[in-house]
Amino acid sequence: MATIKQPSNPEADPRVKAVFDDIRATRKTDFVNNLWRSLAFNPALLESTWAEVKQVMATPSHLDPLTKELIYIAVSIANSCSYCVHSHTAAARAKGMTDEQHAELLAIVSLAAKTNHLANGLQLPLDAAFDAGAAA
Amino acid sequence: MATIKQPSNPEADPRVKAVFDDIRATRKTDFVNNLWRSLAFNPALLESTWAEVKQVMATPSHLDPLTKELIYIAVSIANSCSYCVHSHTAAARAKGMTDEQHAELLAIVSLAAKTNHLANGLQLPLDAAFDAGAAA
Amino acid sequence: MATIKQPSNPEADPRVKAVFDDIRATRKTDFVNNLWRSLAFNPALLESTWAEVKQVMATPSHLDPLTKELIYIAVSIANSCSYCVHSHTAAARAKGMTDEQHAELLAIVSLAAKTNHLANGLQLPLDAAFDAGAAA
Amino acid sequence: MATIKQPSNPEADPRVKAVFDDIRATRKTDFVNNLWRSLAFNPALLESTWAEVKQVMATPSHLDPLTKELIYIAVSIANSCSYCVHSHTAAARAKGMTDEQHAELLAIVSLAAKTNHLANGLQLPLDAAFDAGAAA
Amino acid sequence: MATIKQPSNPEADPRVKAVFDDIRATRKTDFVNNLWRSLAFNPALLESTWAEVKQVMATPSHLDPLTKELIYIAVSIANSCSYCVHSHTAAARAKGMTDEQHAELLAIVSLAAKTNHLANGLQLPLDAAFDAGAAA
Amino acid sequence: MATIKQPSNPEADPRVKAVFDDIRATRKTDFVNNLWRSLAFNPALLESTWAEVKQVMATPSHLDPLTKELIYIAVSIANSCSYCVHSHTAAARAKGMTDEQHAELLAIVSLAAKTNHLANGLQLPLDAAFDAGAAA
Repeated sequence: MATIKQPSNPEADPRVKAVFDDIRATRKTDFVNNLWRSLAFNPALLESTWAEVKQVMATPSHLDPLTKELIYIAVSIANSCSYCVHSHTAAARAKGMTDEQHAELLAIVSLAAKTNHLANGLQLPLDAAFDAGAAA
Repeated sequence: MATIKQPSNPEADPRVKAVFDDIRATRKTDFVNNLWRSLAFNPALLESTWAEVKQVMATPSHLDPLTKELIYIAVSIANSCSYCVHSHTAAARAKGMTDEQHAELLAIVSLAAKTNHLANGLQLPLDAAFDAGAAA
Repeated sequence: MATIKQPSNPEADPRVKAVFDDIRATRKTDFVNNLWRSLAFNPALLESTWAEVKQVMATPSHLDPLTKELIYIAVSIANSCSYCVHSHTAAARAKGMTDEQHAELLAIVSLAAKTNHLANGLQLPLDAAFDAGAAA
Repeated sequence: MATIKQPSNPEADPRVKAVFDDIRATRKTDFVNNLWRSLAFNPALLESTWAEVKQVMATPSHLDPLTKELIYIAVSIANSCSYCVHSHTAAARAKGMTDEQHAELLAIVSLAAKTNHLANGLQLPLDAAFDAGAAA
Repeated sequence: MATIKQPSNPEADPRVKAVFDDIRATRKTDFVNNLWRSLAFNPALLESTWAEVKQVMATPSHLDPLTKELIYIAVSIANSCSYCVHSHTAAARAKGMTDEQHAELLAIVSLAAKTNHLANGLQLPLDAAFDAGAAA
Repeated sequence: MATIKQPSNPEADPRVKAVFDDIRATRKTDFVNNLWRSLAFNPALLESTWAEVKQVMATPSHLDPLTKELIYIAVSIANSCSYCVHSHTAAARAKGMTDEQHAELLAIVSLAAKTNHLANGLQLPLDAAFDAGAAA
């Protein structure tokens, strides 16, 4: 079940083919997952989404690739995106995540959720010490 | 404003004092932030919450301390916990997070939120390749 | 799988039949979807829910019918309600939503989610100019 | 700060006055809180919202009044509604919630959030035993 | 589909067996549901999660067992955790929840969600009367 | 309070000045709100965020400008982003949203939230009729 009809032959459209080729080259795999196959129903949305994912996630930066995937999984769990949890857990594993790190990720995410709900239940006043906007 | 009345002299209770002492020793600071001061209204809840935070966040493990804070912030943003975003951003900075890493964290978290909503809007079928539960 | 047992012959109950008849008449279709078939387990809950949906969504008002469905989908995506995303995307399409409008809806929803997370990460101070409550 | 301008003399409108009078009579207090004062900007929305709150929360039913408030707080925490957490915690206290029960509510809510995130991270298959929809 | 591979013979590990035995003894049933079978991939995470669930949910306290399950379901619905809604609805039913109470739970949860979104849309100022932190 | 220190003279950086100039020209106002002033701490993040907001929200498209703002507000309410609800409600009003339309938006958003929670509580099976992915 899906809310859009996946194009049956998406690469007949040269804009789609260009994105799929770049996904395969960037990820060094022939596999193009359903997110991209579905977004092919609108080439402009496909292009802009992939460009941003490539820029943020597949370009050398100030955080290492595995850390970036762990952050991505954390947000996806909190937003209850089943597809994203699956796809980014697979990606993290491909980037070297061990079972111990996976268990620890789940422990941190679920602890954060726990204290998020505690703090939202207490409606705590902010400590002045946390204000990064204050003059030094 | 808060939903509980913070005890005015929480360390008069020896159970509270023991937790506050451990917080100060573990974090090597005299500062005990409002989450703990508020939880002091129920020493058992204070003890169990701190024990878990100390175990998960302040014990050497399979992920480095800064990565753990970044994951914590990511969940707190997605769950819209203002207090937690403030306290853990301050903690990440204390553990060495640079402005560039902070900007990158925000870029990843907001991109993940974007694709979470895209995937939830498309109601994508899962790719069989993502199934970690399948027989090898 | 479901958390309640859908009544096998719901229209044997005249209160349920009256609601189903009104759904069919209002929507000009014989199709009564599972939300209503499930709510039939409690006729009072079925009646009050349908009465509100009919009043808000199927009565001429200050917003056009398609705009109302787009807003409904947007909330359903953000709240991660798979059933609701499916049912209201189908409803929007029945009210004339084109593929281009669907792609644009997804682009807006996912951009909003992105900046929601950015703003929650930055914990921005509100601009005084946004205060509708201020004296003119 | 607010997104609407609270009417300065809301009870000049007889529809608003009728709702406020009913709130005061139902709750046996002169205090009408800001949610209702704000909704007064649109009498129809005020009327329908109060009618539902009165019906669900202030009418004798199958759950006792304090249990209903605890459920309301739980949802409000999870949805990060600061106003609602404040107003319903005050309501629960007015209906007899003790400090011990408040601490326990927070412990349950935050534990549920923790296992919600664990289960969403694991993407667990449902146990067939949970299916209430199955034939008996 | 799942993000971890459930151990095929989890009770070969004595730490896992001890937890499963305690689950069976505490719940007086032979049934151990998938959450625990999945967490068996990391015995430490399994032990700490079960210890907390047992302490909070299966120990006599200031709230009765059914009320605790209703609160748990409420949070799980708001956090959109399909597995948790299923497992805790089954648990509530096992503790005596009637169909009328189930319908009422759903009515309260969905009304709370409605006013949560109303209040978040209005961005209401807090009433001073709600401040539990104020001096008496 | 904020998690980053807003640059005191952001337009000293030519990249920031270029974005601010474009915001003022696009919106035909001298007012640059805090989201952009805060993002100025990282010019690349500022540039990419503004470019996307301008493309999606300020370019003629398949949906009219007010409808786009209503969708944006809906998502922001559901994600509990206080800043975004304020800024986009102000934007919607600037684009002609009347008080009646605002009330109706709130009625739709809160009804959607209500049925989202109902459907997530019922864990409804999807109707086959909703499957857009099915062969025609």
